[in-house]
Amino acid sequence: MTQTKANTYFGSVNKIAFEGKDSKNPFAFKYYNPEEQIGGKTMKEHLRFSVAYWHTFTADGSDPFGAGTMLRPWDKYKGMDLAKARVEAAFELFEKLDVPFFTFHDRDIAPEGNTLRETNKNLDTIIEMIKDYMKTSNTKLLWNTANMFTNPRFVHGAATSCNADVFAYAAAQVKKGLETAKELGAENYVFWGGREGYETLLNTDLKLELDNLARFMHMAVDYAKEIGYTGQFLIEPKPKEPTTHQYDTDAQTTISFLKTYGLEEYFKLNLEANHATLAGHTFEHELRVARINGMLGSVDANQGNTLLGWDTDEFPTDLYTTTLAMYEILQNGGLGKGGLNFDAKVRRTSFEPEDLFYAHIAGMDAFARGLKVAHKLIEDHVIEDAIAKRYSSFTEGIGLDIVQGKANFHTLEAYALNNEIKNVSGKTEYLKAILNQYLLEV
Amino acid sequence: MTQTKANTYFGSVNKIAFEGKDSKNPFAFKYYNPEEQIGGKTMKEHLRFSVAYWHTFTADGSDPFGAGTMLRPWDKYKGMDLAKARVEAAFELFEKLDVPFFTFHDRDIAPEGNTLRETNKNLDTIIEMIKDYMKTSNTKLLWNTANMFTNPRFVHGAATSCNADVFAYAAAQVKKGLETAKELGAENYVFWGGREGYETLLNTDLKLELDNLARFMHMAVDYAKEIGYTGQFLIEPKPKEPTTHQYDTDAQTTISFLKTYGLEEYFKLNLEANHATLAGHTFEHELRVARINGMLGSVDANQGNTLLGWDTDEFPTDLYTTTLAMYEILQNGGLGKGGLNFDAKVRRTSFEPEDLFYAHIAGMDAFARGLKVAHKLIEDHVIEDAIAKRYSSFTEGIGLDIVQGKANFHTLEAYALNNEIKNVSGKTEYLKAILNQYLLEV
Amino acid sequence: MTQTKANTYFGSVNKIAFEGKDSKNPFAFKYYNPEEQIGGKTMKEHLRFSVAYWHTFTADGSDPFGAGTMLRPWDKYKGMDLAKARVEAAFELFEKLDVPFFTFHDRDIAPEGNTLRETNKNLDTIIEMIKDYMKTSNTKLLWNTANMFTNPRFVHGAATSCNADVFAYAAAQVKKGLETAKELGAENYVFWGGREGYETLLNTDLKLELDNLARFMHMAVDYAKEIGYTGQFLIEPKPKEPTTHQYDTDAQTTISFLKTYGLEEYFKLNLEANHATLAGHTFEHELRVARINGMLGSVDANQGNTLLGWDTDEFPTDLYTTTLAMYEILQNGGLGKGGLNFDAKVRRTSFEPEDLFYAHIAGMDAFARGLKVAHKLIEDHVIEDAIAKRYSSFTEGIGLDIVQGKANFHTLEAYALNNEIKNVSGKTEYLKAILNQYLLEV
Amino acid sequence: MTQTKANTYFGSVNKIAFEGKDSKNPFAFKYYNPEEQIGGKTMKEHLRFSVAYWHTFTADGSDPFGAGTMLRPWDKYKGMDLAKARVEAAFELFEKLDVPFFTFHDRDIAPEGNTLRETNKNLDTIIEMIKDYMKTSNTKLLWNTANMFTNPRFVHGAATSCNADVFAYAAAQVKKGLETAKELGAENYVFWGGREGYETLLNTDLKLELDNLARFMHMAVDYAKEIGYTGQFLIEPKPKEPTTHQYDTDAQTTISFLKTYGLEEYFKLNLEANHATLAGHTFEHELRVARINGMLGSVDANQGNTLLGWDTDEFPTDLYTTTLAMYEILQNGGLGKGGLNFDAKVRRTSFEPEDLFYAHIAGMDAFARGLKVAHKLIEDHVIEDAIAKRYSSFTEGIGLDIVQGKANFHTLEAYALNNEIKNVSGKTEYLKAILNQYLLEV
Repeated sequence: MTQTKANTYFGSVNKIAFEGKDSKNPFAFKYYNPEEQIGGKTMKEHLRFSVAYWHTFTADGSDPFGAGTMLRPWDKYKGMDLAKARVEAAFELFEKLDVPFFTFHDRDIAPEGNTLRETNKNLDTIIEMIKDYMKTSNTKLLWNTANMFTNPRFVHGAATSCNADVFAYAAAQVKKGLETAKELGAENYVFWGGREGYETLLNTDLKLELDNLARFMHMAVDYAKEIGYTGQFLIEPKPKEPTTHQYDTDAQTTISFLKTYGLEEYFKLNLEANHATLAGHTFEHELRVARINGMLGSVDANQGNTLLGWDTDEFPTDLYTTTLAMYEILQNGGLGKGGLNFDAKVRRTSFEPEDLFYAHIAGMDAFARGLKVAHKLIEDHVIEDAIAKRYSSFTEGIGLDIVQGKANFHTLEAYALNNEIKNVSGKTEYLKAILNQYLLEV
Repeated sequence: MTQTKANTYFGSVNKIAFEGKDSKNPFAFKYYNPEEQIGGKTMKEHLRFSVAYWHTFTADGSDPFGAGTMLRPWDKYKGMDLAKARVEAAFELFEKLDVPFFTFHDRDIAPEGNTLRETNKNLDTIIEMIKDYMKTSNTKLLWNTANMFTNPRFVHGAATSCNADVFAYAAAQVKKGLETAKELGAENYVFWGGREGYETLLNTDLKLELDNLARFMHMAVDYAKEIGYTGQFLIEPKPKEPTTHQYDTDAQTTISFLKTYGLEEYFKLNLEANHATLAGHTFEHELRVARINGMLGSVDANQGNTLLGWDTDEFPTDLYTTTLAMYEILQNGGLGKGGLNFDAKVRRTSFEPEDLFYAHIAGMDAFARGLKVAHKLIEDHVIEDAIAKRYSSFTEGIGLDIVQGKANFHTLEAYALNNEIKNVSGKTEYLKAILNQYLLEV
Repeated sequence: MTQTKANTYFGSVNKIAFEGKDSKNPFAFKYYNPEEQIGGKTMKEHLRFSVAYWHTFTADGSDPFGAGTMLRPWDKYKGMDLAKARVEAAFELFEKLDVPFFTFHDRDIAPEGNTLRETNKNLDTIIEMIKDYMKTSNTKLLWNTANMFTNPRFVHGAATSCNADVFAYAAAQVKKGLETAKELGAENYVFWGGREGYETLLNTDLKLELDNLARFMHMAVDYAKEIGYTGQFLIEPKPKEPTTHQYDTDAQTTISFLKTYGLEEYFKLNLEANHATLAGHTFEHELRVARINGMLGSVDANQGNTLLGWDTDEFPTDLYTTTLAMYEILQNGGLGKGGLNFDAKVRRTSFEPEDLFYAHIAGMDAFARGLKVAHKLIEDHVIEDAIAKRYSSFTEGIGLDIVQGKANFHTLEAYALNNEIKNVSGKTEYLKAILNQYLLEV
Repeated sequence: MTQTKANTYFGSVNKIAFEGKDSKNPFAFKYYNPEEQIGGKTMKEHLRFSVAYWHTFTADGSDPFGAGTMLRPWDKYKGMDLAKARVEAAFELFEKLDVPFFTFHDRDIAPEGNTLRETNKNLDTIIEMIKDYMKTSNTKLLWNTANMFTNPRFVHGAATSCNADVFAYAAAQVKKGLETAKELGAENYVFWGGREGYETLLNTDLKLELDNLARFMHMAVDYAKEIGYTGQFLIEPKPKEPTTHQYDTDAQTTISFLKTYGLEEYFKLNLEANHATLAGHTFEHELRVARINGMLGSVDANQGNTLLGWDTDEFPTDLYTTTLAMYEILQNGGLGKGGLNFDAKVRRTSFEPEDLFYAHIAGMDAFARGLKVAHKLIEDHVIEDAIAKRYSSFTEGIGLDIVQGKANFHTLEAYALNNEIKNVSGKTEYLKAILNQYLLEV
């Protein structure tokens, strides 16, 4: 390993700056102006962008029918040298994009060894290196997590494996993960249960698996308390893929799981746009469900292709989605410790290093526009006023009785028998036209 | 109205009898032998079949692109005469099929009048007539429900309408429904919230709508207690259609709703096969989720077409689905007060009266076969043994510690650091081959 | 019938005018400026907008689970009086929106009688009335078509019915339809085969049905020649709904059908956005397939909801879709005799008469913006240059040999054995960012 | 490489024999009795089973979220030694299952070298070895094909790449493939265009890509003629995955492509069950479309999971699908040179060598049962009689005129004006009940 900090992996790209909407420079922000004030905070404070280590530094572009395509300058290295080169490349990209956060799975940053001890040793080496970089970097760790789905040992699940030895291994792995989170100051710790589900009920004890999943989460909570790790725990829902059925199906199902097992006070949700649509929901629906339950923790900022049935993890460019997502986030008072993590990968056909910059710029600009549109919508009370008017019958008379718990089937029947109902249009088309105007004109 | 009980609407069809698998008579049961003993109960006791009034006596075969096609001898009548003729036809069919149960929505059995009072009066007339028929019939009321989705007043929802007057109207309707349930001895009372959902979040107060839905359910529970109605309350999940998003999305979501609002002790689930697949789940998954939560109440026995995206409500003929459904039901110790309600309609192209018999026979035979296969699978411990073996690591050593709450991240890490993991195949293909053998050979 | 031309059905709405993007008037165009010049033609000439009679004047908002909700001032009339009132309302709306075209099915404009003769007589009355209105109106007939899916006689299909009598009836109906088209100067005549498909192969002679469909089309072509009707024949693909499988599945399948039966010179395609997504394609894909085959005839301008599995026929507001559709249309040199027909319905919850205006304005503005963005993209050669560069290897050397037919497996192998391949990124993310910039900034 | 023919890779499994439906031996056929006569041919002659080399000998069980899990005794070898060990294992499995055929992609059997020359040399070594095995084996080559989707060079397509150099490389590869087919006596040569499609139209020249695809196919046809290879050319449709849109979308689209470019006389279709459902069709639909076009060539015998949106390539166990597939195949007079190729993989969780046998036995038994059911259905004219009766109106009178080309819009209108239509039920539910009876009782 002869690589040093002086080297560059993205020599063709300079630090990305805001140049405004008329810029023809592909390596510039058109809408994301970090220091611009929006409602008392800067864009940068609102949009806690985060780079996903796995997609950007580790993944190679392989898919179920094809080998890796990505051209990555660091791929000339192997083993731990490769792991170190990725750290260097990562901090170079973080700095050039000036992103405030990054995220990783344990296995993204360091290779597994022949034993768990060796694996942990590899991890320690890289964590030390990252910690060193973080001293002088503006980029912090949004969250880390344990990859408990790639290694064949997790073939039947991790915390929901039919094999107790695998449960134990997963426990050891998350223990290390929590220690890592504390060491690096991760603002959150995430669980995504890629193998926590089943393939067929013909061989599955559903109840035991769910009980074990809850036991695992409680142990994690206990251990975090023990070591004084105070980051926010997050669960990331997904309905299927890789398993046929995944337990953390969607926001509501995950909240239900947490409440059933008395875990709701320790966890919030990390919601992903592509996982929402795979579950048959809009992204804004998932965000809303989490919001009204006080469980909106963080966001995996990507987009899917609703004509395809798998997780495409595209960089978010759909302005409708970024706008409606930012609307929910602003109404939530922001994401707290959470952020907008680009759990997104450049297409397999976008294999040049520059594409990593194009893609992040595209996503950051799309969210910046979404923020501005959402902020203006809220400032003008567009949606709030429409809703207040629409539900106004619940602020007086029989409606007020209902929400105040003063009505019952007797009083309501008496009212209904002598009342004539008058409904009012929901005005969906009008509201969509207004949304277009705001989208184009803020 | 000159119609009398002496008349017949299905003169071409005699009482359907069991004739066995080699019968060529299309109006005979090939697998459903009501008095056959299966594990200590008769087939008839296991399979609490129910005819759905709306599909079989009220619906006309119209679809979004076409008018009604059904040829129904009673369609020569109008208004209340038509309603009465349907009752006569219904009990003729019930008797010829010898089904133990039927189900209806209020608006299936009697037409709405110009006012709620008049509507209730129409209802009373028909309820009286049904009650009279039930005195001498073997067919009982599995459940009734209120249709709070067809009338334009429910355009924005019923209990979740933005209009308090609609909430009041719905309350009056369910009040009457509970009185009807008591009057006719309904074993259950069902809620299916066809309009309890939203079209777009741009005009929706999600939190208020859910709160109101819970308020409504509590009022229903209170009123049932007040009048001494002791039937089981059921909620029927469906993810979408007619609304874009429906609140009672699937089994887990509905359980979550019930628990959030303290309703879980009063309600169970009425699960439908076609609604399961629309939610992206297998039917057996939904049944399992309800079962392990103690919430499996009743079943809407139909099937969908997973290549289509809407509710096709086909009669259940897929033997895999009937087998796996009966497996869950047997493991649940039966359905208690619930039953197998054919929430299924003959195809729009199957418009002759005889098709109603072909379809019910097809469904009853399919479930009879499913019952026998499932019973034999359980008798032979096929699935139970496979599962017991697969999870055996949780019955001793570290696995037992985990399920007994004696393990933590320290003990598990210590174990994992010195343990080598050995996984065993899940044998899915083998189990599927076994299932085929049981299906073909019981 | 006391209705006269002096009456108004939309008294609350004045003629809609262009007021520009900053207007707060909901009854004004913000982007659609009819007389604005875009590349040598006015917006109005580019965007040959058309109102769909069925959705806007005939449909009542019913869905599979609900009765009609629409409040329509003309609904106080019945029978032929209702039919006449609809014509008056239609031309009032056409004039207030200043749309150049409208479209209808025969059964939208006049009710069926007891016999085909009576039905045709009803039709003649209304056609006469429409013809009279058209003398002083700026709105012309884009196309008419025969509704051969609503009436129960078409339960098994029309031209593909298993019943020859139904084929004959359908023939009589299309004969009348072609005469109507000639009488009213329809620029096109459309076939949408709502029942031309099957429900199950268990009872279907697929080959005979397709042969008969082709026989029917040839008879239509012959009859049009005979009467001198010179409008363009169009077929509208849709993959499913109402039937389980529809023969005119998508653009490519329909082109294949036409070529197989020697019909390709007489027909073009009428492509609908919502039908495209139901078939698993983007709308722009369907337009492109038709375009490169010289078969792009006309457009049903609506949008679907890709999270739902049925035809929602929403008014088009998604600016990405309108932009990419207009891109294909501009590259096609326009639509010729075709137009942008709003085969779109206001939501069942948007039941007030004003919603018809909000919805059409939303759609017209969305397409106007799409036109401007697409025009600018083409003017700047954004996509063309990217494509020319990407495929440049086919303009010289071995690539040129390939496209000129000079290469074979021998020459190509010889080349490949001594060549090193260098691929270049497809730059999807960059192109999507550019598209966003154009969308926001034209 | 010390491996020799004397070694065994599946020592725990003996030759699989037919033991009948009551056998409890998991390593026995319950329904597949190779020598049983069915309608003048043996089961083995009807069911030209084939093992897919890639899934069974090359694939490792990796998925987009996980590494390989498969335990394969040959995995202790590397490089060409591994390739050779796989050949040995393959012929051991072929013999133990007594399957008549196998299939492979070029890259399944031998690793790529550093150059095309080296790659071909590797291929030659293994082909020689296979040829040697085939001398004494009963198992023949159903088809081979070229893998033009895994290597990064095909990132933008092979014959449809934007890079002419890739087209040339693909040509060289197929040239070699055809030589291999001739050398090993392959009965067919298959094209599956895994990368022949596009990701976004923003960077795609659709017309040029399709033209090039056709040019490529013509070159292949020419070269086969030149070398005297007389196997059947096949194309395998798939709508999407790995690319967003694939050109050979479904049966009809592929037939359309072949006809458009004058290729229809040289090609038939290789149809896969899972690809059918991904395209929104039933498998029997795809088979029927090919059959009535004279294009049914061969079958990829697997099944998908219609609740998932990707290609799961499961072993076929659904008896409805195998029955309806065999019905189409029998009606086609068999598959000619084609066969039933298990393009199916054991689940990632079924990673033990024995699972390969369980899975093939499950698939072979399911097709054996399907064959018997389909044969009996045909023998009893169940479906044919129902269809003949249903369409009988086209065998006389006006119906006969229509199919004989003697009718036109004038004669049909005259008929329709004086005719009353009487439709008859399509009896779908009755036919499904009959199908169940045949399924259970043959």
